[in-house]
Amino acid sequence: MIIHKTFNSLADILHSRRQRLASLIDFPAILWSGSISPRNFPANHFPFRASSHFLYFAGLPLPNAAIRLESGKLELFMDDPQPNSALWHGEMPTRDEIAETIGADTAKPMTELESWLEGAATVANQDAATWTQQSQLLNRWILPQNPPQGIDLELVKAIVTLRLTHDAGALVELRKAAAVTVAAHKAGMAATPNAKIEAEVRAAMEKVIIAHNMTTSYNSIVTVHGEVLHNEQYHHPIQSGDLLLADVGAETEMGWAADVTRTWPVSGKFSPTQKDIYHVVLAAHDACIAKICPGIEYGDIHLLAAAVIAEGLVDLGILQGNPQDLVAMDAHALFFPHGIGHLLGLDVHDMEDLGDLAGYEEGRTRSDRFGLGYLRLNRPLRPGMLVTIEPGFYQVPAILNDVNLRSKYQNIVNWQRLSQFADVRGIRIEDDVLVTTEGSEVLTGALPNNASVIEELVGC
Amino acid sequence: MIIHKTFNSLADILHSRRQRLASLIDFPAILWSGSISPRNFPANHFPFRASSHFLYFAGLPLPNAAIRLESGKLELFMDDPQPNSALWHGEMPTRDEIAETIGADTAKPMTELESWLEGAATVANQDAATWTQQSQLLNRWILPQNPPQGIDLELVKAIVTLRLTHDAGALVELRKAAAVTVAAHKAGMAATPNAKIEAEVRAAMEKVIIAHNMTTSYNSIVTVHGEVLHNEQYHHPIQSGDLLLADVGAETEMGWAADVTRTWPVSGKFSPTQKDIYHVVLAAHDACIAKICPGIEYGDIHLLAAAVIAEGLVDLGILQGNPQDLVAMDAHALFFPHGIGHLLGLDVHDMEDLGDLAGYEEGRTRSDRFGLGYLRLNRPLRPGMLVTIEPGFYQVPAILNDVNLRSKYQNIVNWQRLSQFADVRGIRIEDDVLVTTEGSEVLTGALPNNASVIEELVGC
Ligand SMILES: [Mn+2]
Ligand SMILES: [Mn+2]
Repeated sequence: MIIHKTFNSLADILHSRRQRLASLIDFPAILWSGSISPRNFPANHFPFRASSHFLYFAGLPLPNAAIRLESGKLELFMDDPQPNSALWHGEMPTRDEIAETIGADTAKPMTELESWLEGAATVANQDAATWTQQSQLLNRWILPQNPPQGIDLELVKAIVTLRLTHDAGALVELRKAAAVTVAAHKAGMAATPNAKIEAEVRAAMEKVIIAHNMTTSYNSIVTVHGEVLHNEQYHHPIQSGDLLLADVGAETEMGWAADVTRTWPVSGKFSPTQKDIYHVVLAAHDACIAKICPGIEYGDIHLLAAAVIAEGLVDLGILQGNPQDLVAMDAHALFFPHGIGHLLGLDVHDMEDLGDLAGYEEGRTRSDRFGLGYLRLNRPLRPGMLVTIEPGFYQVPAILNDVNLRSKYQNIVNWQRLSQFADVRGIRIEDDVLVTTEGSEVLTGALPNNASVIEELVGC
Repeated sequence: MIIHKTFNSLADILHSRRQRLASLIDFPAILWSGSISPRNFPANHFPFRASSHFLYFAGLPLPNAAIRLESGKLELFMDDPQPNSALWHGEMPTRDEIAETIGADTAKPMTELESWLEGAATVANQDAATWTQQSQLLNRWILPQNPPQGIDLELVKAIVTLRLTHDAGALVELRKAAAVTVAAHKAGMAATPNAKIEAEVRAAMEKVIIAHNMTTSYNSIVTVHGEVLHNEQYHHPIQSGDLLLADVGAETEMGWAADVTRTWPVSGKFSPTQKDIYHVVLAAHDACIAKICPGIEYGDIHLLAAAVIAEGLVDLGILQGNPQDLVAMDAHALFFPHGIGHLLGLDVHDMEDLGDLAGYEEGRTRSDRFGLGYLRLNRPLRPGMLVTIEPGFYQVPAILNDVNLRSKYQNIVNWQRLSQFADVRGIRIEDDVLVTTEGSEVLTGALPNNASVIEELVGC
């Protein structure tokens, strides 16, 4: 690894983050970076991804390392490269060099960590090799699927407090991820007319991300079957009447993510029915972003999207009734069954490893309503929060053919009219929106979403 | 997942494989596919890669599945998709549909596996979630780093016997991987003149692989620092006098790999010193491939490469002495410190998860000689084996600046003359060679390696 000075001073940024942590907890915290996950044999491994909590305070994706944070001090634990590692991996920075880059107060080999465990809290890593090690060293179960307790819970709450709003160092990285993601989507649109299968459009998009020495922040969705919400197949042929939905985001070398969706017509021309629904989704998208400002409840943004979609579908004759009543009975969720968005940061669903501890204000829990259960964020917004806004319209067979739902909404949906929109299987428009003191800033706003401009970009 | 009928009949191929297994062992074998490894949170996971042993007998990359093989019968254990999975993942094939595709005799839910464990052997999976489950169910430690014992060892030996040579079904896939890899390398050459950093060339190459709905079979090496053998950095600027070394291979959806390296001049023109060394490496490459035929020892192929390289370096005045004597004293290994290649199949280093059980003929162990210790394959070749041939020349600072090596080879290397080759940091030429009854077939032979043709392809 080469140490990039990505910020003016990484050490300064990290120093400020741990000072803020020290103002929230009065016990030491130890965070592990995690180990490299083997793919089919140990030397053929998945690309290393450090734990986001580690990255937040240590700045660099160092495998097999740990940091100890106490009273604003940073202690780095990692081993120097093996003597013969230079043959295979080249000259790597030493522990002391890394310590200087990140402004660590001390740097020790990994074996010394066991002398510094007492009274320390931690957060479970995702990989079994690391959480096993955490559990053994701390002599209690540290399992990623278990809710944290005691000082671990206190630590998690403190980390959530910090990571919920982004500092200047984070924003530099998040803007980089957003810019490359915008370029990737433009490349995908341009590549579509010559593509025969979805994989070719995906390739054109990920090429841009790889060329910037970034990685995707999640497994890309690039599909003519947008109605399959987490579609990870890319083999379908793309045909002239299809819409192509691309949910693709870049992640910087330091781990900061973007998350953007656009939906465009393969032919470069929306059909009238596709354009009608596109405008409904775009109206919801624009209305939500216009509302974003400090103090507003994210749950209300979700309900606003639901109302705009319901109203649009009433105007198109697909739903029948008063939009507010339709939302109250979750009729919008027949076509918009997921939440309006989520936190974004070092994780594409930021801090989702902590369950709902980050997404939900203390004391709130998930709704069991059909239209609200999938909402990942339920907090009042504050300046520095970065959220996605991603309304959508989908004709999901598992929903629309469900006997119970079909009977419940028999007279609410004009099924006859709906059948005229068969060429709209799935549309989503997603941007990354920073809450500012004045209102909001769309970090991915350089990517057009106007239907006519999108049409021009396809194949340009 | 959609079930592709990639072969004429996947079920027939799998049937024949397990018949051959049944002729080698008289106890049941259970193979687990493995679980999905989380990246930064459970829903954001690494792309699933099934265990290669599972893929060999089950054909499809099914997560969280197991198969039981006994007396030529195939029993599939996996759970049907969760009821609400259709919303997120679309309609997935059921267990029974998959069972039919792969020709399973029975198909049962995962919970029933515990009734079918008695006397069964297995192979350790790489992911901790799965080897933990294997150990619990079989009530003995099944650890990937532990050498197998008892019936597990017998099973492994039987699997090695089968997987060492490739059947027609495997070759269909291996040829597909080779063809896409050839196209990727050509794209990398063409993209080089307009690239500013290594990542841009990598992007052009991986784009081809992604567009064919394949994945890379290992983390790509695309670097102007070819002397770093396992370089996984892509941020270096590429400059006119540089050589660019690209070791990039595709893997098909069914898991079959290719592994190819080419080295080309960034400017489109080798310097005289670069061309001199390139011809030495190419001569070794060609000599090795010409020698491949049934019965020949792979270790002798390695020594042939060493001799051709030593001779070439003597001709260039870099080494001094008789080539055979130089090889005997490992002088070639100063510049060619790795083995001439390895097995290739479902893994890029095929069956390397089994340590040297596949690579080394029974009774043989790794040499501790500087020039032989990294040799991954030491067996007589047989028709149907697929191996790489990948000679190279590198100026590795960790070797050439080593005080002991420098003094040992003080009068063997003409250090003054060597310094004139400073613009040759690393060259490797790697192809995938199938042993045939007549001799050999280069599956990746469609990719030129002639220096002049390479020059034409750069920037064409
Ligand atoms: Mn999103
Ligand atoms: Mn190789």
